[in-house]
Amino acid sequence: MRYELFYWPGIQGRGEFVRLPLEAAAADYVDVARSSKDQGGGSGALMKVLSDASLALPAFAPPILRAGDLTIAQTANILAYLGPRLGLVPISNGDSTLFLANQLMLTIMDLVAEAHDTHHPVSVSLYYEDQKKEAQRRAEPFRRERIPKFLGYFERALRQGSARGEYLLGPTLSYPDLGLFQVTVGLEYAFPNAMTELAPKIPRVLELRNRVAAEPRIAAYLASERRLPFNEQGIFRHYPELDTD
Amino acid sequence: MRYELFYWPGIQGRGEFVRLPLEAAAADYVDVARSSKDQGGGSGALMKVLSDASLALPAFAPPILRAGDLTIAQTANILAYLGPRLGLVPISNGDSTLFLANQLMLTIMDLVAEAHDTHHPVSVSLYYEDQKKEAQRRAEPFRRERIPKFLGYFERALRQGSARGEYLLGPTLSYPDLGLFQVTVGLEYAFPNAMTELAPKIPRVLELRNRVAAEPRIAAYLASERRLPFNEQGIFRHYPELDTD
Repeated sequence: MRYELFYWPGIQGRGEFVRLPLEAAAADYVDVARSSKDQGGGSGALMKVLSDASLALPAFAPPILRAGDLTIAQTANILAYLGPRLGLVPISNGDSTLFLANQLMLTIMDLVAEAHDTHHPVSVSLYYEDQKKEAQRRAEPFRRERIPKFLGYFERALRQGSARGEYLLGPTLSYPDLGLFQVTVGLEYAFPNAMTELAPKIPRVLELRNRVAAEPRIAAYLASERRLPFNEQGIFRHYPELDTD
Repeated sequence: MRYELFYWPGIQGRGEFVRLPLEAAAADYVDVARSSKDQGGGSGALMKVLSDASLALPAFAPPILRAGDLTIAQTANILAYLGPRLGLVPISNGDSTLFLANQLMLTIMDLVAEAHDTHHPVSVSLYYEDQKKEAQRRAEPFRRERIPKFLGYFERALRQGSARGEYLLGPTLSYPDLGLFQVTVGLEYAFPNAMTELAPKIPRVLELRNRVAAEPRIAAYLASERRLPFNEQGIFRHYPELDTD
């Protein structure tokens, strides 16, 4: 099965939560909007699938995954689909682990949404510069309360699950591990000072981030040109005025 | 199977998206924090499950569902679990409809989160009164752009799927229909003027809202004391200053 991923070509964004599992599993996939127009790629291909009236269900926003006849959207939904198919979720326990994986991933995506809103607290259709004052007001409790609450939760999940193994759901890598890696490095990029301060309280989260980064396929991906750098058009933006002094 | 739902007792909140399917299916369930202390209920029971260190995976926040040995959180995850078990998702099409249902539900929950943030654009730990100015600034593009974009999306989903039947996923009620009902009536409560203005553009969404409200079990539930009224502690709050004049 060749998977087609449709996502904005210039940012990691929510698409990265799909790219990482595809890379970790060495899946056959095309990052359509980043491939050449000659091969049916480019942003036009993304706009086309967004407005495709022949789909069983239209997509509200990217990322979008096409897998044969099925076209689906919503990051955590795409991952719930891909997880078992890519061997990135333990399936020893009937289907109950699928719901634990999905619960973790949805909590990761909630943190991603809150991270985004620190620089866009008023509207997605305004520039950051036009909502900078509100952004500074919102970023402060995000750093002081929300990052510690969310990453503290994942620390606790790793501690409670430590009898099962060193990953979130057992002894092997699963897709929520890749998600926790991505949100952690994203927050480290956007809020380096706040994250340095928090580090002593989340040792297991940071160990997991290192373990994921060292997975051979992930390490190769991160070193490749396929991994876009973080930038100030994406979800995780480094604006020093939004970080701790 | 007796299901146990754990959610804040005084508000509809995200718990309502779980209560509605349980009611629509006449499932055997206990709304634990709203049942009496003598029967192991009350808010204490909710706090206990939130800090339960023996769970395979802790919960970040309510709603939480206990189903036998399985305890799971995250609204859309709970519904992905319950949907097929309560007969509230069509399963004729292999498992692909499960992913369409989940995609719809996640999009509904994104709209719910944005609706919440209109009155809490700075921090969940501050009162509305302490972020009123930012709330007014955020509510305006929410009413003008986001509600029309989201509800316009569901209108389009109903139109594209109309060959399948009059519900979102076919000829019968599924759990995303209940979710779309709840977010629509919630927005009508919070933003009555903006919703009256939008009404001519979303006829299918409003027809679906009526169809769901007329389902015998839902009608009985809405008329019962089990249905909490909307109030200004919940997600959908009616603050006239946040609505269109």
